[in-house]
Amino acid sequence: MSFEKIKRSEDYSKWYNDLVINAGLAEHSAVRGCMVIKPYGYAIWEKMQSQLDKMFKDTGHQNAYFPLFVPKSLFEAEEKNAEGFAKECAVVTHYRLKNDEENIGKLIVDPEAKLEEELVVRPTSEAVIWNTYKNWIESYRDLPILINQWANVVRWEMRTRLFLRTSEFLWQEGHTAHATKKEAIEEAETMLTVYADFAEQFMAIPVIKGLKTASERFAGAEETYCIEALMQDGKALQAGTSHFLGQNFAKAFDVQYTNNEGKREHVWATSWGVSTRLMGALVMTHSDDEGLVLPPNLAPIQVVVVPIYKGEEQLNQIKEEIQPIIKDLQNQGLSVKFDDRDTHKPGWKFAEYELKGVPIRLAVGKRDLENKTIELARRDTKTKETISINELATKVPKLLQDIQKSMYHKAKEYRDQQIKEVNSWEEFLVEIEKGGFLSAHWDGTSETEEKIKELTKATIRCIPLNNKKLSGKDVFSGKASDQRVLFARAY
Amino acid sequence: MSFEKIKRSEDYSKWYNDLVINAGLAEHSAVRGCMVIKPYGYAIWEKMQSQLDKMFKDTGHQNAYFPLFVPKSLFEAEEKNAEGFAKECAVVTHYRLKNDEENIGKLIVDPEAKLEEELVVRPTSEAVIWNTYKNWIESYRDLPILINQWANVVRWEMRTRLFLRTSEFLWQEGHTAHATKKEAIEEAETMLTVYADFAEQFMAIPVIKGLKTASERFAGAEETYCIEALMQDGKALQAGTSHFLGQNFAKAFDVQYTNNEGKREHVWATSWGVSTRLMGALVMTHSDDEGLVLPPNLAPIQVVVVPIYKGEEQLNQIKEEIQPIIKDLQNQGLSVKFDDRDTHKPGWKFAEYELKGVPIRLAVGKRDLENKTIELARRDTKTKETISINELATKVPKLLQDIQKSMYHKAKEYRDQQIKEVNSWEEFLVEIEKGGFLSAHWDGTSETEEKIKELTKATIRCIPLNNKKLSGKDVFSGKASDQRVLFARAY
Repeated sequence: MSFEKIKRSEDYSKWYNDLVINAGLAEHSAVRGCMVIKPYGYAIWEKMQSQLDKMFKDTGHQNAYFPLFVPKSLFEAEEKNAEGFAKECAVVTHYRLKNDEENIGKLIVDPEAKLEEELVVRPTSEAVIWNTYKNWIESYRDLPILINQWANVVRWEMRTRLFLRTSEFLWQEGHTAHATKKEAIEEAETMLTVYADFAEQFMAIPVIKGLKTASERFAGAEETYCIEALMQDGKALQAGTSHFLGQNFAKAFDVQYTNNEGKREHVWATSWGVSTRLMGALVMTHSDDEGLVLPPNLAPIQVVVVPIYKGEEQLNQIKEEIQPIIKDLQNQGLSVKFDDRDTHKPGWKFAEYELKGVPIRLAVGKRDLENKTIELARRDTKTKETISINELATKVPKLLQDIQKSMYHKAKEYRDQQIKEVNSWEEFLVEIEKGGFLSAHWDGTSETEEKIKELTKATIRCIPLNNKKLSGKDVFSGKASDQRVLFARAY
Repeated sequence: MSFEKIKRSEDYSKWYNDLVINAGLAEHSAVRGCMVIKPYGYAIWEKMQSQLDKMFKDTGHQNAYFPLFVPKSLFEAEEKNAEGFAKECAVVTHYRLKNDEENIGKLIVDPEAKLEEELVVRPTSEAVIWNTYKNWIESYRDLPILINQWANVVRWEMRTRLFLRTSEFLWQEGHTAHATKKEAIEEAETMLTVYADFAEQFMAIPVIKGLKTASERFAGAEETYCIEALMQDGKALQAGTSHFLGQNFAKAFDVQYTNNEGKREHVWATSWGVSTRLMGALVMTHSDDEGLVLPPNLAPIQVVVVPIYKGEEQLNQIKEEIQPIIKDLQNQGLSVKFDDRDTHKPGWKFAEYELKGVPIRLAVGKRDLENKTIELARRDTKTKETISINELATKVPKLLQDIQKSMYHKAKEYRDQQIKEVNSWEEFLVEIEKGGFLSAHWDGTSETEEKIKELTKATIRCIPLNNKKLSGKDVFSGKASDQRVLFARAY
């Protein structure tokens, strides 16, 4: 680890970028705006996938796979959606390369292999999926369709940041079709709850469930539900969205079903997604100046054991004592690593696992063996204690649960402190510089929202679900308002 | 199920295509050459993925993710590889669409958003990965690198067939880097064994492990190992490949490491992959005129229970008796479905689960309940027996294992019969029309191989590993040969 660590207080943005790279989560690739997700980062993503996939299946969804490419004519069909994504589409225009005769060993695009119709690399799959659903839906008996897809998508970005904004990213996208509006809205809300539960129970990130304003909605949605999290620098991050799409796509692709009275009706739709962006939220919510701090529920390595030894014999004594306990922990479903590499000193290993955010580090040396003790270090609190080796198999699983909860509560305490009621424009201008969510009255117009964004870079992150209606005056325009909404600067 | 079933003997190709569609595995999409993998098909693929992923991790590999796009200049770097794939590359040339001013509501490619360098949609990822490994490898301590990626790839195909040959397909690609040639060859061989074990133990497909001839090798490989399977129509199918890449990519991307004597050397490489093509192999190895026959180890539903009842009361009696047993089977890790839909008759359900290849079907009616019996039907042999309900929890798991083995042995028996020694060109011409593998002497030249292919459409599928050396005369040229190789027509 021959790099210099930067502190969050010095440059939060550089701290984040350095940490993602130094902890081995991801790096920039030779392809503009695309990242390489490295094994350690991918292992965290796999844990996220596996849990989300289980939650999707538990709520009745199945996985499927739809094409990467969307023919331009399909892409155009739902106009708002097309308009929303047109400016960031990678477009395939040719299907062959050929030798460059003027430049031996080089290839050029073969002009004779031009596609009759260009293909858009999917920025999202509504178009290609609804064009497919059209053939799957005939009567109410074919509904609901509850499908999820794990896939890569491409949205061309000019300014990219690892995990937070990349031209290609990995995500899941749910696409459901329903007979009634009510059922579709319930689905969108159910999936929002799944996302919120996942964020809070697995990522240990408190989130606010809410609705987006019209101008922040997904292109083509009637209503966008979201979960909003708060990063350590006071900026908000949209961690997941669930859209009630109304009948927009059903109308664009003419997807109708025969209801149980024999009448033809357009189908109602939802879509919902979370992406590798969650990795950025995970890093920025919990990590510290020493490195990552991973919640046990998503840590690829939950416990690392570092033996401190001189020579084979001592190592063997340690192994003999410790390995049965490691086995026991593994049998309990924990991920435990025993790091007896002789290429690195214990101090180096300690720093490495600190950087990598391993929740519990156990160190055991000759004297520990004599005393039947082991040193246990907790990554989140940086506390150490010496415990009896005999206690390990019961204490460690319990402690991992405690760490998981404690990380959530710490993050929630911070987030709660950062929600401030603001009642005047002067106050707004002062508080927005400090970061956090500002709870302020809004007159409900896109004009005011836009103006506030221009002046402060703050956007309305959401109108919290179950928001209290109470009359007041818009913090900027002074016009009548019937509720407070949450403003923040955001990633 | 309002479609007409075609028999294998009538038109094998149409039988396959109809079955893939009618059983709900996949269908053609609006995108030329790209398929939609439907939930039932995807559920089988997920089972394959999950098992393969475990086998890769058990052999020390980690997953990671690399970009979808390969800049043309990187793609060109390893010339043989580039040449091999250039003719089937989808190429991204632009990154934006804009409104078509002459055609309201339509979009056109924005000519101002032309990329300076075109991006190839990955047909395989060696180029982008080796360009990345270059930065990861400094000394022998950084080796080996053992990485796998689950991804979609695109190879433009003119004639496509569901699963067997599609322009976009899903696969995994392993990419490893080693300090020595020996280690790289061992890796390529290890992964071939993983593939063979997976095919035989999970897919119940017997395979022959072998080496490809020079002309059938992966573009850029020094040696391509393969597993070859035989379909019911006598055509061979390459089910997986593992490549020893020598130092070709290391040299193309200048990837060197410092060995333990301080000298710089080029790294040695392998790559290996299997794809959704395996789905085609699975269907074509086992299925019959009634539908799919799935091996229990990969069946999304292993056991289906169909209640035969009149009215709520009978259904409830059946439920009361059967549900504890279903629970028991599920607790043993089996996937059991209870289908009490009242929208379909039992006979319809029987046909549906037959079509979908569910290994065991249980049917239980009023009289069964009185007798404490249940009817058990086996999909692979189409045999039925009546057994005691009390035996279910022990008999069913055991039977699933038997079915798995029995399917493998049946396929192996067929395959073994279809390997024929052929000793003259006349015999070759007769036998190749009957299908199967022809074991024949080959003089080792690409010229003869090419000639035989032109005349018969048969290719050398592989030189079996541990092939016996024995002198003879080439079946076509009559020139000296030191071994027999396997010829076949292939998918």
